[in-house]
Amino acid sequence: MKIVLIGAGNLSTNLGKALLDAGNDILQVYSRTFESASALANFVGGAPVTNIDSVTKEADVYVISVKDSAIAEIVPVLCKGRGEKVFLHTSGSVSLDVFKGMALHYGVLYPMQTFSKSKLLNFKNIPFFVEGNDDYSFETVHHLADSISENVHILSSEARKHLHLAAVFACNFVNHCYEISSEILAKHNIPFDVMLPLIDETANKVHQMKPDEAQTGPAVRYDQNIIRMQSDLLRENPIFKQIYECMSLSIHYVTQKKGGNE
Amino acid sequence: MKIVLIGAGNLSTNLGKALLDAGNDILQVYSRTFESASALANFVGGAPVTNIDSVTKEADVYVISVKDSAIAEIVPVLCKGRGEKVFLHTSGSVSLDVFKGMALHYGVLYPMQTFSKSKLLNFKNIPFFVEGNDDYSFETVHHLADSISENVHILSSEARKHLHLAAVFACNFVNHCYEISSEILAKHNIPFDVMLPLIDETANKVHQMKPDEAQTGPAVRYDQNIIRMQSDLLRENPIFKQIYECMSLSIHYVTQKKGGNE
Repeated sequence: MKIVLIGAGNLSTNLGKALLDAGNDILQVYSRTFESASALANFVGGAPVTNIDSVTKEADVYVISVKDSAIAEIVPVLCKGRGEKVFLHTSGSVSLDVFKGMALHYGVLYPMQTFSKSKLLNFKNIPFFVEGNDDYSFETVHHLADSISENVHILSSEARKHLHLAAVFACNFVNHCYEISSEILAKHNIPFDVMLPLIDETANKVHQMKPDEAQTGPAVRYDQNIIRMQSDLLRENPIFKQIYECMSLSIHYVTQKKGGNE
Repeated sequence: MKIVLIGAGNLSTNLGKALLDAGNDILQVYSRTFESASALANFVGGAPVTNIDSVTKEADVYVISVKDSAIAEIVPVLCKGRGEKVFLHTSGSVSLDVFKGMALHYGVLYPMQTFSKSKLLNFKNIPFFVEGNDDYSFETVHHLADSISENVHILSSEARKHLHLAAVFACNFVNHCYEISSEILAKHNIPFDVMLPLIDETANKVHQMKPDEAQTGPAVRYDQNIIRMQSDLLRENPIFKQIYECMSLSIHYVTQKKGGNE
């Protein structure tokens, strides 16, 4: 298929490469800055454009991967005069209805993964969640997803919002816990590397058991002396201290609800 | 070496097996309940005991892996009458000084890992942090650690406290984020499995880049519409909502401090 990428960020870079590798043709890459547009265009093919009005009408599919707040601004300008094409966005939290009244055929192509430009991923096992407003859109988005992943699901906009929230916890907040951990270690001149086997095993464990069964540490034992002492170690950083306290309490609640641990 | 294991929980089970495999001799396993003591004794050898007074005086090393709050209670009883032996505990947050005045030779053997009885780990790459009160204790604990791991470090009690706190974030709180994620998904009948590629990649990423460089999502972009909407999706669970809000704010602070993202 002939594709235009709208956006040249982390997701667009990874998705563009996967779509190219699957035999699609990237006609153009749009970004607000020429630098970003041309960097990605050099990589996946097509011409860089920085003006939405200059986006070609010759593509089959327009894939929008810009930040959520920019989608609603871009859609009306992009869809106008491109009546029969398929428009997709890739956001977890934006409804399919953002296209309503703006285009005839539209859908969502949402990959459940965290992307960075500097780390290109194999898409084969990445779960994709797709949605389409009619049979034609649905077939197009499903076909596109199937061409790059073996793990494609159909999901409504409403359920996708919750899926995205679940991903924020499983990825962004997890990564922030890594960040806090690394800051604590750096303060005591301990290299972050010593955490990697623990980080890997923590992720591995939930392949084999449910997260509440995998839990260990002071909070699940509700060891109040340690909890108080550790919380006090964070006294110079009120927000980290608050995270420590909410997390410990929440682990304790979950443990109590399921009837204790250890 | 001839070893007695004090405690038969997740850590003792994994450590006992590693010590056995490294050619040590487990003489006894102590636990408060006969069931636990005999389960582990059946697995790693030695006799189960449920009374500290029945612990043999014939061992070279006594390895204490009980919950932190129980260490100070067990130490005086265990050390009495076993003057020349080496006593070790395996806790992140308990000082070496818990043994002071109770024994001549003592130390700490702290593995940086999360253990479950049902999942036995290869110890080779697990970082160990050791400490000893004198040359003899230090050599003993270092020798023991070297026999099971290729990743042994020397660390003071004071620094170990902070290391343990860092591990609580990188493991226990990370796992709790997985738990919250799984609860959100379960409510919408989405299997937790769809999160696993994201969980794995989030862990993989910090092998290659620093956590603050790896961050993605609404909070690092400070997309306030999405943050408000997602926080509202958690309105029925005040503690999850509070975690969401602290985490998002904290990610925003870290991002600002390092001068923005995306």
